[in-house]
Parts: sequence; C-alpha cells; structure tokens
Amino acid sequence: MRSLKLTIAYDGTNYVGWQVQTNGVSVQQRLEEAWTQITGEKIRITASGRTDSGVHALAQICGLKTNSDIPCDRLPFALTSQTPEDISVLKAEPAPDDFDPIRHCTSKTYRYTVQSGSILDVHGRGYRWHVPQRLDVEAMEKAAAFIRGERDFKSFEAKGAERLTTVRNVTCLEIIHRRDEKHDFDYFDFVVTSNGFLYNMVRNIVGTIIDVGAGRKPPEWVQWVLEQKDRNCAGQTAPACGLVLVEVSYRDQNGS
Amino acid sequence: MRSLKLTIAYDGTNYVGWQVQTNGVSVQQRLEEAWTQITGEKIRITASGRTDSGVHALAQICGLKTNSDIPCDRLPFALTSQTPEDISVLKAEPAPDDFDPIRHCTSKTYRYTVQSGSILDVHGRGYRWHVPQRLDVEAMEKAAAFIRGERDFKSFEAKGAERLTTVRNVTCLEIIHRRDEKHDFDYFDFVVTSNGFLYNMVRNIVGTIIDVGAGRKPPEWVQWVLEQKDRNCAGQTAPACGLVLVEVSYRDQNGS
Repeated sequence: MRSLKLTIAYDGTNYVGWQVQTNGVSVQQRLEEAWTQITGEKIRITASGRTDSGVHALAQICGLKTNSDIPCDRLPFALTSQTPEDISVLKAEPAPDDFDPIRHCTSKTYRYTVQSGSILDVHGRGYRWHVPQRLDVEAMEKAAAFIRGERDFKSFEAKGAERLTTVRNVTCLEIIHRRDEKHDFDYFDFVVTSNGFLYNMVRNIVGTIIDVGAGRKPPEWVQWVLEQKDRNCAGQTAPACGLVLVEVSYRDQNGS
Repeated sequence: MRSLKLTIAYDGTNYVGWQVQTNGVSVQQRLEEAWTQITGEKIRITASGRTDSGVHALAQICGLKTNSDIPCDRLPFALTSQTPEDISVLKAEPAPDDFDPIRHCTSKTYRYTVQSGSILDVHGRGYRWHVPQRLDVEAMEKAAAFIRGERDFKSFEAKGAERLTTVRNVTCLEIIHRRDEKHDFDYFDFVVTSNGFLYNMVRNIVGTIIDVGAGRKPPEWVQWVLEQKDRNCAGQTAPACGLVLVEVSYRDQNGS
C-alpha cells in the first residue's frame, strides 16, 4: 500500500460540498469514482476538511491509500480526464504512511470575495457576494483587528456543531481592496488563515465585518459579539459562493 | 426626444449574441424589454457592434432615443433591476442628437484569454479557452508582429460576410502572459485594438497565433496567411467564451 497526497481544485457551485451526502453529488464522490475508473480500486479519499455546498477550492489537500502503481506524475492528468470539468487534480505526491490530511493539517487559508456597489459586476458574479452598499474600509479594518489572534470564536460557529473547544488562532485576516474606478466596482478579498475553522466561521466573520462596513454596526460591536459566545449575537452568514479554500499547510512539505 | 449613450456589461454565455435573433434570447432583447418596463416606451437600442453568441462585454456602448425624462444617474440602477443578473447597465450619459454607436466609433478593444497546460483551471473555465499544449511565448510574439498595423485581414474574416473593404488597422496586439507557478497554470491575454473588426476576426487571429504557439506552424506562416486573402489558409477559430469586448472609443467623451 502506498500513501498519497493529492492537491485538487474545484468549483463547488454544483456540489453538495466536499463530503459524500445522500442528498446530492459531492466532490468526494466524483473523485473516488474517477479513482475507480483509472485503477479499478474502490477506496476512500479524505480531505483536509469538508467544504460546504457551493464553496470552492483552489488547492484542497486529500489523502488516500492505494495498491495502484500509477506514477505520481501521471495521476493528475489521468484523474482529471475522468472527473467533471469543475474538478481538476493538480498534483499527486507520495505521503508518509500515516498521513492524515485532517489531523496533520497545521493551518488553512480561505479567501472570501465581496463586490460592493449598486450595480452587480456580471463577470465572476457566481463567485462573489454582491453587497449593494458602499463599504467603509477603515471601519472594516478596525473590526478585523478584534478578530485576529487566539480567541474563543463560539459566536462565529454555526448552531448545531459540537467541538471540544471553540478557541482558534486566526494568524491572518487581511482585507485587500481593489477599486475599478472606470466601472465603479469595489472588490474586497478577505484572506483568513487559522490553525482551524469552526463550522461556517469564515462566512460568519465576513458577514459580521460587512455589517460594520455597511454602517449598521460600529467596529467595537465585534468585540462585544466575541464576548457573548453566542451565534445569535453575530452578523449574517455570508453566502457560500464567495468562499474559496486557497491553501492547506502541513508541518513539512511531504505532508507529515 | 433625448439621445442617450449607455455603457453595459454582460456575460454572453446564455445569449445568442447582442442582436435580436429568431433562434434565441439576445442581450438587445433583454435590454429593450427592461427599457419598456421602466418607461413604457418601445424603442430600439443599438450597440457599437454585434457580439456573437457566447461573447462577453465589460463595456459595450449603446445608443437610444427616448421621450423619457428619467435622470441619467438613476437609469443604471433602474434598468439593471429589470435585466437578468448577467446583464448590468453601468452608465447612462446624454449624447449628441445624431449619436450613432456604430458609425461614430473610432476603435474597439477586445481581450481574448487562453489558459494553457495539461490540467484545466476550473475557476473561470467558462471564460477562457483551455489549450492543453505548452505555448511558446516568443514564437507567438513573432507571429503577432505580422498582425499589427494596417493590413488586409480578409484571411481572418469568417466566410459569408460581405464588406466594402477588408482592410483594418490593428493598432495594438499585446500578449500578456501570467504564470501561476504553484498550480502550473499559464494564462495569456490577447489584447487587440483596431479601428474595426471583421466577422470573427479576433477569434481567427487568436486561433492562428495559438497554432504557432503550440508549434504546429512557424511564426512566418502568419505573413503567408495574410497574403493569401483566403480564410481557408488561416488557423482555427478560437471558441467564443474566451472573448470579451473591453472598450469602445469615440472621438470625444460625449460620444460624438
């Protein structure tokens, strides 16, 4: 048995999410089917974390164990030829025998993109959240400062999830603002890195910061939200389409 | 009667093109319907040029005559609220009485985007042409040099079209190469400006340059293609999805 690490990209629009579900087609299902097509093996492929329905990935990391001896450099093309065109396998590498893409992951980075302005930018519209209001960049920066660092993010965890701890360390929360003066569009990329994410955490953080940016709440409200440790106190959940998993990190390069 | 100039953006994926057709829904039809919704007027809205089925626009220019007195600054939002989400009206301005978006146009700029590499980049896949081969940038630059300038582009005009002259002045043909080293994706933006375009001209030029980039033909072949004045001699027609109309220019700012 070989242990392998795959890097895959997908457009989550047409999937129920990463994980196999009974209510629709998942990325995991399509990838496992592709594996069976090229090797004849029925195996389980795990990922660094579940992405929700409609959430995308530029570089999701997966792990699998196989008896197949197809060389790593042939696997991306062979697998991608069997997946739908919204799933691509970018890379295959040998991994340590005990490689576990969930447990060995040290941090993940997500990017959430918002377009603001009264008119929708039709190009890329399925991959951003359109917020009609003008957003106050300075106020959003102040709000973001309350989020960075090791904190209890219970207020930003979707209801129903159960975790041993809701403390996470957000090592990066950068807001990158681009303005298209000519067409009067503003874009905001929220880049969030953490050692772990609670269910819907990024979407709840972004929805909360947007409430501040749109002037519905002052920046200091975010501090209060954190202190309440209650999801009902935080802002709206930003829609799934604007979210993309951009990077998953492991202690060393071969994924151990 | 007022004369108005509109700047509109659209995703052409789901349309038969700009112009009203009997075989499907056009951008023109949806825009004229939106106009009727907000004003009650049934009018004709013309554009700087027809874009084909599947071709996009960042800033198409339209002209119309109206008896409505809705202020220009309210029109973009009012119209966009009545169009499907793949058509947005970005701007409305007063235009000279005789404004004709086709005849008064001095130049247009299109951008054509190619992604090369064996694996498809799933993100933005409907808006680029995926070419599996590695492309030789230097060879494509040499090929592009034969295209720039005032020339007879008859070899790059789709069959069936009839024009008084097939001479056009390509004032810009820039190839912008971006490489995503991490995911092994290469992107090429072909930015083409001309005083006018023949039917399918950009797509035929790009298809021809890609034949050179992929090593199927030498750069000098493009010179020979131009000299033949015969569409059968040029390369393939690049698919519509990669093409976007980015700018339409007029002699002065108010479109006269």
